Amino acid sequence: MSSIEQVSQCKSFGGWLKRYRHTSDALGCDMIFGVFLPPQAESAPVPALWWLSGLTCTDENFMIKAGAQRRAAELGLAIICPDTSPRGTELPGEHDSYDFGSGAGFYLNATQAPWANHYRMYDYVTEELPKVANTHLPLNGECSISGHSMGGHGALICAFKNPGKYRSVSAFSPICHPAGCPWGIQAFSRYLGEDRNEWSQWDASQLVHHAEEKLPVLIDQGTNDEWLGEQLKPGSLEQACIAAHYPLTLRMREGYDHSYFFVSSFIDEHLDHHARALGLMPGETS
Amino acid sequence: MSSIEQVSQCKSFGGWLKRYRHTSDALGCDMIFGVFLPPQAESAPVPALWWLSGLTCTDENFMIKAGAQRRAAELGLAIICPDTSPRGTELPGEHDSYDFGSGAGFYLNATQAPWANHYRMYDYVTEELPKVANTHLPLNGECSISGHSMGGHGALICAFKNPGKYRSVSAFSPICHPAGCPWGIQAFSRYLGEDRNEWSQWDASQLVHHAEEKLPVLIDQGTNDEWLGEQLKPGSLEQACIAAHYPLTLRMREGYDHSYFFVSSFIDEHLDHHARALGLMPGETS
Repeated sequence: MSSIEQVSQCKSFGGWLKRYRHTSDALGCDMIFGVFLPPQAESAPVPALWWLSGLTCTDENFMIKAGAQRRAAELGLAIICPDTSPRGTELPGEHDSYDFGSGAGFYLNATQAPWANHYRMYDYVTEELPKVANTHLPLNGECSISGHSMGGHGALICAFKNPGKYRSVSAFSPICHPAGCPWGIQAFSRYLGEDRNEWSQWDASQLVHHAEEKLPVLIDQGTNDEWLGEQLKPGSLEQACIAAHYPLTLRMREGYDHSYFFVSSFIDEHLDHHARALGLMPGETS
Repeated sequence: MSSIEQVSQCKSFGGWLKRYRHTSDALGCDMIFGVFLPPQAESAPVPALWWLSGLTCTDENFMIKAGAQRRAAELGLAIICPDTSPRGTELPGEHDSYDFGSGAGFYLNATQAPWANHYRMYDYVTEELPKVANTHLPLNGECSISGHSMGGHGALICAFKNPGKYRSVSAFSPICHPAGCPWGIQAFSRYLGEDRNEWSQWDASQLVHHAEEKLPVLIDQGTNDEWLGEQLKPGSLEQACIAAHYPLTLRMREGYDHSYFFVSSFIDEHLDHHARALGLMPGETS
């Protein structure tokens, strides 16, 4: 178990926003992650929401732009923001495009050279970082997961592949069927190779057919999102959920785009969705 | 009266965040400003809060980081964010430091060359831009003013110098006595020259003695703000307000710093302060 080093701290809504650096064995590099600890964490361990960010993001975007701390502080919910890819590895071509390599880890375990030695974000966000966070921070081990765009894809696959690990899942504008869209096809081809059976292990619209646990799933999607038709394909996931008898709440939000202004408009409802599943809103169940 | 050109729009909390470009006569250059229009503005004109930003900011920082849109949408309050200095003027030395020139207009009218032809942010934010906004946007003309750091200074001097123009004023971490701190001394020397009588026309702690109207003033200041002692000097304003019998609510916030994480933590209370003065919270008076 690696140690962690505090990079910064900042008071926010009576709690603390902190950033930590640690050495990741899964990724083979140093990583920074951010955490919001609500005021309740000063007296007792609290549950956590994992937030997975989208293409080009780091651990910082969500904390700066989503406006989630206000409601999280009221609920007593920690939020943990991992980075979106390994850092400092300097692999050939790693920084050449916004939608592959650095900032675009796609929350999978790569099998192809040169990515396989470092691009193991799935192991990092589902196994290694939770152990680090639960060891060093005042968390009670109960958690849920959410994310935006590429991170919405990440949240969905992490939930579908790990029965018992999360109490609820949600996503904003997720890449619902990466095996069938340009962003995903590029990433899966290069990280995973051309075996489509391997791809199906990282595609929410295919994984949902095999999910062993039916978690509350909430998805918000803006109708004015420039990536909606070509890249995000919520209809693919909706059809798959119907076929798999998996309960999905998909809300199309008239006029909203792909930005964090959209996320911030509805983040409180997502936090409440998770708080209900985590038992933070007594008398209510999701 | 110049026309305005919409640069972008984005739906947010049921309202719209829009950015406009226009040609400013006061500044002699093209400027961009941002506005949040709450959903209520679709059916009737609404009052506005003017937000003046701090050093290095543009019109965008507040809208991205402060998390104000949620409460503004509930209240039916528009928010207008001007830029912090003229743009595109390319004066000698204009871009050499973060605390003077571009991004650091200090909301005054410069009298010294080469600044006097363009650095007239006071006229811009108190006269020209309100006329532009009230002409082209669904605003009812009633307004209040607030800001952060250099923008807190701006909000205070605009309020103190313009009886009847604003219904209330507030500030986060304002530069309370620029004539007595390094940021202000540099700016006033270069924009205004060495006549300290001229400086006193742009210093909140001096202007308050001559303010003809006693507006509700709310100031929040973090105790862990790195600029508190050397640059911000809320104690100077507090003493001046006591001497001038001017009602000031100054709240020292334990552990908070100078960032927008501080602003976001208390922005709702500032919006409510202004909403009461603007008559948006029936049955309450500030």
